[in-house]
Amino acid sequence: MVAAIRVAPSAATRAASLLRTVQYTHPPSCPCHSNPGHHHNHGAVKPQIESYARRNGQRSFASPMDPARQKEYAFEMAASSIRFGPGVTQEVGMDLTNMQAKRVCVVTDSTVAKLTAIAQVKEALTREGIEFTIFDKVRVEPKDSSIKEAIAFSKPYNPDAYLAVGGGSVIDTAKLMNLYGEYPDADFLDFVNAPLGKGRPIDRKLKPLIAIPTTAGTGSETTGTAIFDLVSKRAKTGVAHRNLKPTLGICDPLNTRTMPAAVKASSGLDVLCHSLESWTAIPFNERTPRPTNPILRPAYQGANPISDIFSLNALRATVKYLPRAVRDPDDFEAQSEMLLAATLAGVGFGNAGVHLCHGMSYPISGQNPGYKHNGYDVDVPIIPHGVSVAVSAPAVFRFTAASNPERHLQAAEAFGVDISQVKREDAGAVLADALIKFLDELGDQPKGLRDLGFNSEEHLDALVEGTIPQQRVLMLAPGLDTELQREREQLRGLFEDAMTH
Amino acid sequence: MVAAIRVAPSAATRAASLLRTVQYTHPPSCPCHSNPGHHHNHGAVKPQIESYARRNGQRSFASPMDPARQKEYAFEMAASSIRFGPGVTQEVGMDLTNMQAKRVCVVTDSTVAKLTAIAQVKEALTREGIEFTIFDKVRVEPKDSSIKEAIAFSKPYNPDAYLAVGGGSVIDTAKLMNLYGEYPDADFLDFVNAPLGKGRPIDRKLKPLIAIPTTAGTGSETTGTAIFDLVSKRAKTGVAHRNLKPTLGICDPLNTRTMPAAVKASSGLDVLCHSLESWTAIPFNERTPRPTNPILRPAYQGANPISDIFSLNALRATVKYLPRAVRDPDDFEAQSEMLLAATLAGVGFGNAGVHLCHGMSYPISGQNPGYKHNGYDVDVPIIPHGVSVAVSAPAVFRFTAASNPERHLQAAEAFGVDISQVKREDAGAVLADALIKFLDELGDQPKGLRDLGFNSEEHLDALVEGTIPQQRVLMLAPGLDTELQREREQLRGLFEDAMTH
Repeated sequence: MVAAIRVAPSAATRAASLLRTVQYTHPPSCPCHSNPGHHHNHGAVKPQIESYARRNGQRSFASPMDPARQKEYAFEMAASSIRFGPGVTQEVGMDLTNMQAKRVCVVTDSTVAKLTAIAQVKEALTREGIEFTIFDKVRVEPKDSSIKEAIAFSKPYNPDAYLAVGGGSVIDTAKLMNLYGEYPDADFLDFVNAPLGKGRPIDRKLKPLIAIPTTAGTGSETTGTAIFDLVSKRAKTGVAHRNLKPTLGICDPLNTRTMPAAVKASSGLDVLCHSLESWTAIPFNERTPRPTNPILRPAYQGANPISDIFSLNALRATVKYLPRAVRDPDDFEAQSEMLLAATLAGVGFGNAGVHLCHGMSYPISGQNPGYKHNGYDVDVPIIPHGVSVAVSAPAVFRFTAASNPERHLQAAEAFGVDISQVKREDAGAVLADALIKFLDELGDQPKGLRDLGFNSEEHLDALVEGTIPQQRVLMLAPGLDTELQREREQLRGLFEDAMTH
Repeated sequence: MVAAIRVAPSAATRAASLLRTVQYTHPPSCPCHSNPGHHHNHGAVKPQIESYARRNGQRSFASPMDPARQKEYAFEMAASSIRFGPGVTQEVGMDLTNMQAKRVCVVTDSTVAKLTAIAQVKEALTREGIEFTIFDKVRVEPKDSSIKEAIAFSKPYNPDAYLAVGGGSVIDTAKLMNLYGEYPDADFLDFVNAPLGKGRPIDRKLKPLIAIPTTAGTGSETTGTAIFDLVSKRAKTGVAHRNLKPTLGICDPLNTRTMPAAVKASSGLDVLCHSLESWTAIPFNERTPRPTNPILRPAYQGANPISDIFSLNALRATVKYLPRAVRDPDDFEAQSEMLLAATLAGVGFGNAGVHLCHGMSYPISGQNPGYKHNGYDVDVPIIPHGVSVAVSAPAVFRFTAASNPERHLQAAEAFGVDISQVKREDAGAVLADALIKFLDELGDQPKGLRDLGFNSEEHLDALVEGTIPQQRVLMLAPGLDTELQREREQLRGLFEDAMTH
């Protein structure tokens, strides 16, 4: 593990002198590394960065002299610690004791509150003599009002740790309870993503948060993202900062066996889109602007060499195991692998981001004309998140493929397509066809927006306008124009194409 | 990101009831999940665990009724946050400010102290108005005495953060300065790996530690491991616990360009063995005993589905880029990719472990008969760590292949071997041949222990006895017997085989 770096002084001196020659043509505080507004030519730096862009089939640098479009030069990889194993939920009491937690706020929803996971958590905490309270009123698809209600519950309790047990809505709500507990005087919008909120970075150490997912979809146990509806702005938004991520994700495949088949399918489609979108997002070094302080580097930073590894592995696992997990409730191997895939995809998109499928999904589910998804036996119409994300996927990847045909072909290959004879210009069509076949074979999925009750005549304008506020993810969409009127036209085309597969 | 988990009450009730039926055949506090000494039959749990063992070509479970050999059922993945980019060293002042650090202990060695990286660090800290002191007396290949000297330096300074700039020796020393600063009354052996030390787990939150590697080898910037010579026991040992890991690793490819070619080669061989050993280590669920508390779960836990992803990617990158990085000092792409590979391998072995190459390397470098490695122009004989690790690799993988031929064939494939016609029983020979060819083409590498001055007549006993104390890594070696006399014979055979490739 320890590399011998004892170097002959002469060699070291030679090397240092070489470096000085190459690098000190600009001073070590070269403003192109930390401040926008100026750029020297970096003989030594450009080849490596360019190689990532080239490998990904992206166009090369804009002119290095164009200060307004100064691009990112680094990426950061952060993820919660992850523990994975069947039955591992029962360790959580010891974990909290090891973290010196004595007073814990358990966060869940009314459905999960009735499941075994919560019974095991209660027993684990009791066994360790930890005092705890349970907030079980998390709203599925949280709103700002439901988040505020949760914060109002935990603030006076003043816990020294949080324990979230549930799906993404529960884990996201717990993250925000933790955040606003540490910033008691902050305005709610301070940390919400700009431009809807102020996008303030999280510069305090939050309390420990352990997340126990009960769905295999969200990946929220590994990410610094929390999503909710900001009702006044009629937009889905959230808080995203790597300091928001849980301390530990406890992934217990026994907990996801409670999902009915329809929930397995829709949460698995969320995993599919997390991996496909993060894999095809613009490369980190095409993102602008370059942050002036590392705390301002977004979690959604574009595809990078580490997120790529997670995204592609998660994609392959989802293609292999999701159909089995949905089809056979006794296929524990497939269910376990899907929980692992959800977590891997979480690390991938948590550090690279998502783009059009997610950006477009928010108005799709928010403007639901009345669709009730099969297997979701509820009293109000619902388009499950994973369904609203996947329904536009064929149209989206047909659109994005031109920006990076190689990656789209690799994705098609993950679906089992023989790509050896496929032309680059057909990459989008081939991936879209693979997706349509996959959705069809999964069963019970809409064959486009029309099956959800949308039509081109009535709904296009509202769907486009509902997508425009999602700039945080749209900025990562390859091929999408930054000029607003052109972007509107492209989104309109995408929704039109998504009407039927 | 948020999976819709609103479920029809009736479906939820059905699912919960199904779960109870399946799972409550044993109580939720089933001792087989947390306490050794008892085991029920887990209808639902076994298939998933077994599938990992089966996929890896390992034998299945021992009898579930054998309490003394109760096996692990979970794995944990923890890694430092990683930031990667050319020039990113200059952000470190802002990072420390963001961490509220006002008084920083910079740790380095006398060689690195003269390089640009330290100049950049000083300027970055000064720019932020951070008070700092520099300890530049880290010993390469640290001893307990040099570690204690370092601790004696930092303790009275009482820093609120540490910044390590250097290779593995520097980063490892800084980890231990941080550890013993937080446990001022601890005995030095308290945290040292058992059986040489007491193996006490780290249950306090340490101060922030940022690591800036200047070699592409150690991976120490991502791991919770610190290695040194325990002189009184004549053994290489260390402290290993995930709470020891740095807060952030700053990987700047501009910093590794100072390595001379010989250092690039030997640190790259360390990366090669980190990835090969972690990839071939016993699976996590073959390790015994199952920990009774999650804080006792070792960082070196055996191969697992997440470490596998890192290890295999690092192996492929090393095979591709190390020869280029060694051959051409101007090949910045290859150098950058090697730094990334070192970090990826660090995450892999930091969560899976290493085994025989590393275990055997300690007596090899410690009992050096007088070898001076080409390109290391120093006054005392030295076998660089990477060289001492790689020299036994052909013999090691010839030995371990029988335990898992598929994995060894996949490794051979990473070297470019066409494995389509190779028989399983030839996996070891094929991988060993690929390694020998790789080492040969890299240049300036010994063709076995004999080239280092060892011979079978004089040195075998001492080499074997010097390996025996490395139980922490030997326990992860597939195919190695746990009975001591048999283990000695196997090690003797391995050293004999490693005399010449």
